[in-house]
Amino acid sequence: MPILNKDMTLCISLAARPSNIGTRFHNYLYDALELNFVYKAFAPADLAQAIAGIRGLGIRGAAVSMPYKEEVIALVDVMDASAAAIDSVNTIVNDGGVLTAYNTDYLAIARLLAANSIPVETTVLLRGSGGMAKAVAAALHDAGFANVTIVARNEAAGRALAGLYGFEWVPGSDADRAEMLINVTPLGMSGSEKNVQSFTDAQVAAAKVIFDVVALPSETPLILAGLAAGKHVITGAQVIALQAEEQFVLYTGVRPSGELVREASEFSRQ
Amino acid sequence: MPILNKDMTLCISLAARPSNIGTRFHNYLYDALELNFVYKAFAPADLAQAIAGIRGLGIRGAAVSMPYKEEVIALVDVMDASAAAIDSVNTIVNDGGVLTAYNTDYLAIARLLAANSIPVETTVLLRGSGGMAKAVAAALHDAGFANVTIVARNEAAGRALAGLYGFEWVPGSDADRAEMLINVTPLGMSGSEKNVQSFTDAQVAAAKVIFDVVALPSETPLILAGLAAGKHVITGAQVIALQAEEQFVLYTGVRPSGELVREASEFSRQ
Repeated sequence: MPILNKDMTLCISLAARPSNIGTRFHNYLYDALELNFVYKAFAPADLAQAIAGIRGLGIRGAAVSMPYKEEVIALVDVMDASAAAIDSVNTIVNDGGVLTAYNTDYLAIARLLAANSIPVETTVLLRGSGGMAKAVAAALHDAGFANVTIVARNEAAGRALAGLYGFEWVPGSDADRAEMLINVTPLGMSGSEKNVQSFTDAQVAAAKVIFDVVALPSETPLILAGLAAGKHVITGAQVIALQAEEQFVLYTGVRPSGELVREASEFSRQ
Repeated sequence: MPILNKDMTLCISLAARPSNIGTRFHNYLYDALELNFVYKAFAPADLAQAIAGIRGLGIRGAAVSMPYKEEVIALVDVMDASAAAIDSVNTIVNDGGVLTAYNTDYLAIARLLAANSIPVETTVLLRGSGGMAKAVAAALHDAGFANVTIVARNEAAGRALAGLYGFEWVPGSDADRAEMLINVTPLGMSGSEKNVQSFTDAQVAAAKVIFDVVALPSETPLILAGLAAGKHVITGAQVIALQAEEQFVLYTGVRPSGELVREASEFSRQ
């Protein structure tokens, strides 16, 4: 029985097609940490009016998902470096009516690169050219990685992304080798392309680190191949949990333990 | 543990100083009736932006309290007769972006007059000249009551209210007698004037019906005197519960049983 009280601080998400994951993840942590917060997903009827509502109702924070990540830039007051780096917002924090935009995907990827102690000299094949690929490329660049090749069938998008950060672009990569393979395409996701492995077995064998960013579920063919070959793997589930944790910290000022984040993450997918 | 889900319909209240009563009343009924709704009180930072948020986020309904009951008129699309009758809004319903304003205090008083079968020929002393007194005067007038005297120390406000409906005005009433006594002043409420009885024992003795509208708690000196004298009494608690029930019906389309409303009302005050 969700008997709310008047003093609860509300956080929300804005997405054309909300999932239940954020609502369950955040409310689980609020409860576990005894924070008087409540979280609810919304599919806004009008983005500008929804943002006005954040100010008018004193909503503390909002996750921003497709298709609003760029449109919302004009509606906030301050762009944090994480959002400005990729011109894309996935989190808004309201401090007394001042709305600051962040991108916690960027923050999560930067933290995972650091936490996994990946040397900046590592050679990287980065497959993809969409918004999340841009977050990964920016995080690599800002951390000091220079030996990065963007792999993208779409030449215009691939060249544009590579050009932003002084990286190379190639249309296909089967003949290439690198120490870190990063997939940011839907290859391997549940759905039509679920059984496609985004890099070849030979590429996996030649690599040290396998990083599948957007995978849902997290055990993609690429991750399974990496595990079978005994490689250091980083999964999309880690990205999702860490970016949600960063949002949680921004909203509440409280950093939950890793164990609690794992519990909340598991609960959120049930 | 309030684990919400993304599909819940949100209803809210807007007040400078929210109480917990609405939040508890509505959530109790949502739970008992298994409606996928959730309710939360807000103290808006900016009324116009809060109303924009109702549209933008698709919030289904909003209770409107002090000091926003008049200011909100310019921000809605349609004024229902109940709100137009007294130029005061306490409820907004959002139908696909079209905001209709109601006044369920007016609706509740009109229903209580009808449900208690008070004949329209009854003589009435109505003490008070504020917003709620206006709702009572309008409901009396619209139901056909004509023998009504407004009792108000403030001559300008009292004459203005009486003039709206063709009623009389008097500054004090101790010498007057009527079949129905209605108090709409804070006299008898908890707080500084809690022990003051808003009509004299002699007036109570001469009356048939005792109606204390704004009393909180509901057992005011006037109500206790009415009960002791064996009179037909109508309490402020009945007004509050009935206006909240009318809001609930407007938001959800479901009319809860009287028993359930009593339970929710009791729960809301704990």
